[in-house]
Amino acid sequence: RSSSLYVSDAQYNRNIFFDTSPQAVRLYLLYNHWFMQTLVYTFIIVNLALALFEDPAVVPLPIWATSTIEIICLSAFSVRMVHYAKVIPKDKFWKDPKNICIIVLSFIDLTIYGALKSTGYFAIRWSRVFRPLLLVNVTEGRQLRRAFRSIRNALPQISYVFLLFMFSVLVFSLVALKLFGKRGLLTIDGSPYFTDYLDIVFDLYVLVTTANSPDVMMPAYNYSVFFTIFFILYIVINTYTFMSFFLAVVYSNYKKHLKEEVRQLVKSRRFKMCRAFSLLQEARGEGGEPVVTQAKWNHLVKLVKPNISISHRELLWSVLDDQNKGHIGKFAFVQLADLLSIQVITVKSQPHPIQICFPSMYNSPVSRFIRYVVHQRMFVYVYDLIILVNAVFIGLDEENPVVSNAEWGDLVLYEILLSFLCNRLTKFLFAAGGYTSRQILDIIFILRVLRLIRLVDSIKRFRAIINILIKIGPTILIFGQLIVVVYYIFAMVGMELFKGKVQFFEPNSTSPDQEYCGNPLLKGTTFAKLNYCKNNFNNVVSSFIVLLELTVVNQCGFTAVTHISARIFFVLFHIVVVIIIINIFVAFILEAFLVEYTIDKSDLQTSLEKKIEELELNVQQYVPFKPAIKLFDVKKKPFMDAYQHSILLLLILGLMEVYVVLCLSGMVWTLVL
Amino acid sequence: RSSSLYVSDAQYNRNIFFDTSPQAVRLYLLYNHWFMQTLVYTFIIVNLALALFEDPAVVPLPIWATSTIEIICLSAFSVRMVHYAKVIPKDKFWKDPKNICIIVLSFIDLTIYGALKSTGYFAIRWSRVFRPLLLVNVTEGRQLRRAFRSIRNALPQISYVFLLFMFSVLVFSLVALKLFGKRGLLTIDGSPYFTDYLDIVFDLYVLVTTANSPDVMMPAYNYSVFFTIFFILYIVINTYTFMSFFLAVVYSNYKKHLKEEVRQLVKSRRFKMCRAFSLLQEARGEGGEPVVTQAKWNHLVKLVKPNISISHRELLWSVLDDQNKGHIGKFAFVQLADLLSIQVITVKSQPHPIQICFPSMYNSPVSRFIRYVVHQRMFVYVYDLIILVNAVFIGLDEENPVVSNAEWGDLVLYEILLSFLCNRLTKFLFAAGGYTSRQILDIIFILRVLRLIRLVDSIKRFRAIINILIKIGPTILIFGQLIVVVYYIFAMVGMELFKGKVQFFEPNSTSPDQEYCGNPLLKGTTFAKLNYCKNNFNNVVSSFIVLLELTVVNQCGFTAVTHISARIFFVLFHIVVVIIIINIFVAFILEAFLVEYTIDKSDLQTSLEKKIEELELNVQQYVPFKPAIKLFDVKKKPFMDAYQHSILLLLILGLMEVYVVLCLSGMVWTLVL
Repeated sequence: RSSSLYVSDAQYNRNIFFDTSPQAVRLYLLYNHWFMQTLVYTFIIVNLALALFEDPAVVPLPIWATSTIEIICLSAFSVRMVHYAKVIPKDKFWKDPKNICIIVLSFIDLTIYGALKSTGYFAIRWSRVFRPLLLVNVTEGRQLRRAFRSIRNALPQISYVFLLFMFSVLVFSLVALKLFGKRGLLTIDGSPYFTDYLDIVFDLYVLVTTANSPDVMMPAYNYSVFFTIFFILYIVINTYTFMSFFLAVVYSNYKKHLKEEVRQLVKSRRFKMCRAFSLLQEARGEGGEPVVTQAKWNHLVKLVKPNISISHRELLWSVLDDQNKGHIGKFAFVQLADLLSIQVITVKSQPHPIQICFPSMYNSPVSRFIRYVVHQRMFVYVYDLIILVNAVFIGLDEENPVVSNAEWGDLVLYEILLSFLCNRLTKFLFAAGGYTSRQILDIIFILRVLRLIRLVDSIKRFRAIINILIKIGPTILIFGQLIVVVYYIFAMVGMELFKGKVQFFEPNSTSPDQEYCGNPLLKGTTFAKLNYCKNNFNNVVSSFIVLLELTVVNQCGFTAVTHISARIFFVLFHIVVVIIIINIFVAFILEAFLVEYTIDKSDLQTSLEKKIEELELNVQQYVPFKPAIKLFDVKKKPFMDAYQHSILLLLILGLMEVYVVLCLSGMVWTLVL
Repeated sequence: RSSSLYVSDAQYNRNIFFDTSPQAVRLYLLYNHWFMQTLVYTFIIVNLALALFEDPAVVPLPIWATSTIEIICLSAFSVRMVHYAKVIPKDKFWKDPKNICIIVLSFIDLTIYGALKSTGYFAIRWSRVFRPLLLVNVTEGRQLRRAFRSIRNALPQISYVFLLFMFSVLVFSLVALKLFGKRGLLTIDGSPYFTDYLDIVFDLYVLVTTANSPDVMMPAYNYSVFFTIFFILYIVINTYTFMSFFLAVVYSNYKKHLKEEVRQLVKSRRFKMCRAFSLLQEARGEGGEPVVTQAKWNHLVKLVKPNISISHRELLWSVLDDQNKGHIGKFAFVQLADLLSIQVITVKSQPHPIQICFPSMYNSPVSRFIRYVVHQRMFVYVYDLIILVNAVFIGLDEENPVVSNAEWGDLVLYEILLSFLCNRLTKFLFAAGGYTSRQILDIIFILRVLRLIRLVDSIKRFRAIINILIKIGPTILIFGQLIVVVYYIFAMVGMELFKGKVQFFEPNSTSPDQEYCGNPLLKGTTFAKLNYCKNNFNNVVSSFIVLLELTVVNQCGFTAVTHISARIFFVLFHIVVVIIIINIFVAFILEAFLVEYTIDKSDLQTSLEKKIEELELNVQQYVPFKPAIKLFDVKKKPFMDAYQHSILLLLILGLMEVYVVLCLSGMVWTLVL
C-alpha cells in the first residue's frame, strides 16, 4: 500500500515525507483525497472572495457576517493543518511555520478589528494582505511555490541591474534639471516643466513604461529641436537597453533555475521509486539481485491508476520487461513513474462522448452516414468556406436589408435550422426591445464567430503555433494564480490608500461633481477629462481592473488626490509586476517556443512507441513528454487530437446555440401567451 | 603582396574575390584604402543629408543646387563602382546589379523631376526612398547587410505568427462589433463606439502597442464591469502572448542565423588563409610538407599590420611556432588572422596620450607626484566622495544662497579653479542675462554630472554590467544605421503623404490657427489639445522625431487630416520597426547577455595568455575574443581598461571645462571693454 503511495507521489511530484505506520498511511491517503483538496481550495476561494463583501465592498455585508465566514475558513485551514501535522514527522512540521503565522495573525487582526469597530474607533484589516499567501502555502500549491522560488532566485541579479538603471535615471534627471529647469518652460497643464528634481525622476521613470511618451518631451521639443537628443539617448539607454537587460537577467535565471528544478524533480522521483522498490522486492534474479514480479507489479499499477485498461497495462509491462522474464530489476522499475506520465490514447479506451452517452444514436444509420460524410476531404473545404462566409456576414452591417437577406444563404447542416431561427428571432426581439434577449443574442453571435478557429486549425503551419499555445495553456493558469496573488496584495493596500478618493457617477446622473470624478482636486486634469472616473480603488473589482491597466500602461491620477508619495505605490507595482512577473512570463514563452523547436522525444517515449509498433496495438496517438518546459506543469493532462478537439468544440457550440434558441423561443412564447 | 591581402581580408572578413594580377592587386589596395572608404561614406552622408535642403526643407535651397550636389554624389558612386568592376571578375560584378539600379533610377527620377518642375507640373522625388539603400549596398556595409539578411531569413516564420495574430485581432474585432456595436455607446470625443468593423480592427491593433490602453475600454467598462473580461482576454492573448511569440520567433531565428554566419565566416577566413599560405609556402618541413619561414612570416605581418611592435610580433610567432623550429606549418599559419584579432595592449606600445603629446610635461616632478597620488587607494575614495557631494549640490536649488555658498566647498584638484570661476561667472551672466552663455553653462553642468559615471564604475558588480554595455556599443551603432535606413525610407514616404497637413506655430505667435495646428480638421481633437503640433512631417528632422515617438508608442493624429487609409502607413511602420527591428535588438542584447555569462575564453586566447605568462612580457591586458556575439561586430577594436578610460574621460571633461570657461571669460572681457 505505501509502495503505491510512493509511486503516485513520484508520478505527481509530491514532496511530503509521510510516516510509514499504517495509521499514518491511511491519514495520508485521506489527506491526498480529491475531495479534501477541493474543499481546501473552496475555502481559499471563499476567503479571498470575502474582499467583495468587506468594506469597501461591491456588495456590502455586515461585519458579523463576513467575520463569521472568515472564522469558518480559518478554522477549516487549522483543521487541515492539524491533519497535515499528523501525517508528517513532528520536526518537519515545525520547520515551516508560515501557514500557522498567517492563520494566527488573521485571528489577531480579526479580534482587534472587531473590538475597535464595536467601540467606534478607526481600524484597518491589515491581515487581508496575507490572504493570497494561503494559495501559495497550501500543500497543493507546489507549482505556484516553484514560480515564487524562481522569482526569489532571480532577485539579487535583478537588483544589481535595477540599481544601475535607477542610477542612470537619476543622472539623466540631474542633466534634465540643468538643461530645462531654468528656461521657464510650461507643461500642457500650465505647471512649470522639469523644475523639481523628484518630479523629473518620476516623469523619466514613467517614460520608461512609455506611458507619457510624447507628452513629457513636447515642451522641450517645442523650445528647441536639439533637446530631443536628450530624450532619444534616454529612450535608447533606459527604455530599450535596460528593459532588455531585465528580460535577459530574468531569462538567464529562469533557464538556470529550470535546469536545477528538473534535476531535483528527477532525483526525488528516483528516490521515491527506489523506496517503493525496496518494499516490493524479492531476491529472485539470476545473480540473486532483487527483482519485482509481474503479479506484484500489476497489483501496484492497479492501485496507482485504478482505471487503466488491461491492454495499456500490458503494453507498459512489455516495455519494462523487454526480455519476457516475468520480473523486472530496479532500473526498469524506477521508470514506471515516467512511463505512467506518457499519455497513451487508444481508440478503444477513449470513445466519442456521444458514443458513451447515446450508444444507440451513435450507431444509427443516419449517424453513420454523417460520420462518413464528415470524414470526406471535400466536406472539410465546404465547411471551412461556409464558416468564412458566415463570418463575413456577421461582420457586415445587419441593419442593411440586403445583407440581412443574403445571410439567409448561410443555412447549412445544423446551421440550416438555427440561422433561420436566429434571424427571425433577432428581428422579432429588436421590435420587442427586450434587453435580456439582447444579451443572449450576443452570446449566440460570439459562439458563431468562435467557429472561425476551426478554419485556422486546418492549416498545418498555424496548427503548430496553436499547439504551442494549447501546451502553454496550463502554465498560463499558474501565472494567473501568481498574478492574482500579487494583484490581491496590491489591491488591498491600494484600497486602504485610495478608497473613495475618486467617484464614478452613472452617465445619466445629474450630479455637478460628475465632471471631476467627485473630487475637486481633479478639476481640469486629463484624468477627469478622459473620463477615467471608474478607474478607482473603491472596491476590489475596480482595483483589479485598475491594476490591469497599470500593468499595460502605468498612468495614474491618484497622486493628485492624495499625497505625492502615492507614486511609490505605482512605481513598486511597476517593478514587481512589469519588470519581474511579465518578464518571467515572456521568458517562459521564449523557452517554451525554443524547446518546442529543438527537443527530441525522450528515450523512454521512443521505446514505448517502438513497442506499440511491434505489438501492432490499436493505439492512435500519444502525447509527447517534454520535460524542459514542464517547470510549472509537471502533472500531465491528456488532451485530444486537435481535429477531434475542434469537432467536439463545434458540437458543443451547436448544442449551446440550440439551447439558447430554445430558451429564447420559450421566452417569446411566454411573452405571446 | 597578394598573400598579405588575403590575410588582411581574412582579418577584417572582407569577401571580395579580386583578380591576382599585379595591376588588379594594386587597384584592390587603392579600393580598400581608408581615404577612399572615408570619401565614399562622406558622399553617402551628403547624399542623405540632401533631404534637409530639398522640399519640404529645413533650410530650403534652390532645386539646381540640390540637383547639382546629387549629381556629384551619384557620379562619385558611379566612379567607385567602375573601380570595383575593375577589381573583381566581370561575371561576379554583373551578378549583383543593385547599386547600378539605384544610381540609374536616381538619375532618371532627377531628370523627370527637373523636367516636370521646370514646366510647372506636379512631381514627386520618388527615388529618394532608395538613397539609404546605398548605405546597405556599399562594399563596406558588410555588417549592415548581414543584419538585413538576418531579418530576411526570419521573415517567413514571423509572417506565419503575424497572420495568426492578425486572425486573432480580426476575430476579436468581430466579437467586439457584436458585443458593443448596437449599444449606442459613445467615446470620449462623442463619436460612436465600436460600430465600424475596420475602425475596431485598427483600435484593437493599437491596443497591442498599449498606446490607447485604458481609453479604448473605458466606454465599455463604464457600461458594465463584465465587458472588461473581453479586454483582459484580448490583452493576455494578443498584447502579451503574441508579442512574446514574435520575440521568440525573432530570437530563435537570430540564434540559428548567428551560428550559420559564424560558421561561414570561419570557413571563408580559413579559405583565404590557405590561399595566402599556398603563395608563401616552401617545402622545408620534416616530412617534406610545405611550411612558411619566420622571415617570410615577419615580412607578411609587417605588411598586414605596419604599426605592430616587435615584441608583439615575436610574441605571436612564439605562440604559433611552439617548438622553436623557425618555420610553421599550414595549421599554425591559418591561426594568424585570429591571433591578430586578439588585442594585446602592452604598456610600452600604448602610452598615455599626454606622454605622447607633451613628453617633458609628463615626466616633470609635478606630474610624477600627481601620478603617484592618483594611484593611491585613498585618493580614489576621496575623489568619489567629492563627485557625489558635487552631484548633490548640482541637484539642489542653486538660487538658494546657502547652497550657492556651500558649493564653494566643492573646490578640489582642477576643480579648485574652475568651480570658483563657474559660480562667479554664473552669477555675473545671470545679471547680464546673456543667452549664449546660458547654453555654454548648460554644457558645463552636464559635463560635471557625467563625472558620476566614474563612481559607479568603481563598484565591481556594476562594472560587469557596464562592460557588457560597452561591448555591445559598436553593435548598437550598426542598429543605429539599420534604424536610419528604415526611418529614412518611412520619412520620405511620410513627407510626401503628410507634409504641410499639420502646422507648428511659435508659442508667442498670435495666429488664430494655433490652437488646432493650422488645420481645421484637428479642431477639438486630443492631438491639438495636447499641443502635438510640432509632431509633423513638414521636414526630415520632424519626421525622424515623429517616427521615434511612433516607435515608443504608436499614436497618430494624421488620419484625421488625411484619409483613413493613412493608418496603413502607421501599422506598417509598427510592424517593421517594433515587431521586427526592436525585437531583433532585444534578441541581440539577450544573446549578448547570455553569452557574457557562459562562454569561456577561446583556446587560442588561452594559449596566448599562457605564452605571455611564460615570457613574462610587460603585457597588461588583453581583450577577450567572443565569437558568438560578434555577428555585427566581427572587426575588433581596441578599448582601454575601464579605469584608464574613466581617468581619460575625466581629463577630457576637465580640459573642455577649462576651454569653455576661457571662452566665457573672453566674452566677458569683450563685453566689459
